[in-house]
Amino acid sequence: MSPRVTDKYKEQKKQRILEAAKSVFIRNGYRGVTMKDVVDASGLSRGGVYLYFSNTEEIFSSLIEASDDNYSLLINQISNDKKTAWEGVVQLIEIVMNNIVSIEEGLAAAIYEYFLVVNRKGQVRELLMRRLYRAIDSLRVLLNHGIENGEFHPVFSIDEISKFLLFVMDGVSINMIHLGEENVNVKKQADQLILYLQKALQVNGCDCPAKNI
Amino acid sequence: MSPRVTDKYKEQKKQRILEAAKSVFIRNGYRGVTMKDVVDASGLSRGGVYLYFSNTEEIFSSLIEASDDNYSLLINQISNDKKTAWEGVVQLIEIVMNNIVSIEEGLAAAIYEYFLVVNRKGQVRELLMRRLYRAIDSLRVLLNHGIENGEFHPVFSIDEISKFLLFVMDGVSINMIHLGEENVNVKKQADQLILYLQKALQVNGCDCPAKNI
Repeated sequence: MSPRVTDKYKEQKKQRILEAAKSVFIRNGYRGVTMKDVVDASGLSRGGVYLYFSNTEEIFSSLIEASDDNYSLLINQISNDKKTAWEGVVQLIEIVMNNIVSIEEGLAAAIYEYFLVVNRKGQVRELLMRRLYRAIDSLRVLLNHGIENGEFHPVFSIDEISKFLLFVMDGVSINMIHLGEENVNVKKQADQLILYLQKALQVNGCDCPAKNI
Repeated sequence: MSPRVTDKYKEQKKQRILEAAKSVFIRNGYRGVTMKDVVDASGLSRGGVYLYFSNTEEIFSSLIEASDDNYSLLINQISNDKKTAWEGVVQLIEIVMNNIVSIEEGLAAAIYEYFLVVNRKGQVRELLMRRLYRAIDSLRVLLNHGIENGEFHPVFSIDEISKFLLFVMDGVSINMIHLGEENVNVKKQADQLILYLQKALQVNGCDCPAKNI
């Protein structure tokens, strides 16, 4: 067997384990899952799973990384589309907020739990910093595009505006997990975030007097 | 002993247990605390503690309630102060954001953990709804005051604006817990929330053209 085939085979095995693990993490939360659960769900042997991952934390960080890859890909796609930067921002918020509406079917609750649990052991800050700054990097491309073509005249730094956007998403997500759409009304929250961004980015020269900002 | 004295004595005992429990929850997180830990920290007998609380969850909900009481009291105080409603809003955000800066010394991480853990058991929605709507009720008094005296002309409903404000606080809090002030910069987040509220409430008739809102 050539090394190339072996690598592909390994990648497929790894993906199969991750897919199986994802469904049990969604069902049971981060702390409710053992390696035995993952082995059972994957249909592989115990040795087959341990060849790739030593513990549930390793599996879980791989799942988080895959989820972050998808977000970066999404933002890059939106940035590369031929439309105004502002349309890109609105589209991004609509897509992310739509994902939040179906958050109960996803990994988000387990991810928040993971960070709170692992944070207690003081190991998590570096991973979370990498996540935050990676997300800011992706947003920066989109927002800078709007500055360069004269659409945006931001009144705060792009990094601070990006953080605010990400923190709003976190706040809405965590409340969706706990309270559901009937109490959160994600669409209304999205509208408010869009109003904020329009004002903070001063899209196409909103003519509010500067003293009001 | 008259019933009045008995009640006062009971209340003092309860407070002593809650104070002791709070410090162990802050140190160990919600799931890291047993009734034995609380008994040891309180300096009372096992029976003395179990007379008031049957388990750590009961203790923890009492702590959450006390924390919420403090917030309602704060908002009411601000509402009753003789100043403009907008000054009240800004003061509220500054106080809450200042509390977030010192979040690592408080109960917040344990509270988020509690809701994620207990949510899995499906028991938490009612408690959290009560918390959310109680916070909205308090904010409504302050914001309605601004509407009635002609300071505010909100472009979203007061309830939706209050939710957005609370969700931003959640998002900033949870990121402070994980990433610390050097990555979050709470003051900059507060400034952005204030800009948002100024626009959403149309404080003192900001003359942005309606189409931009």
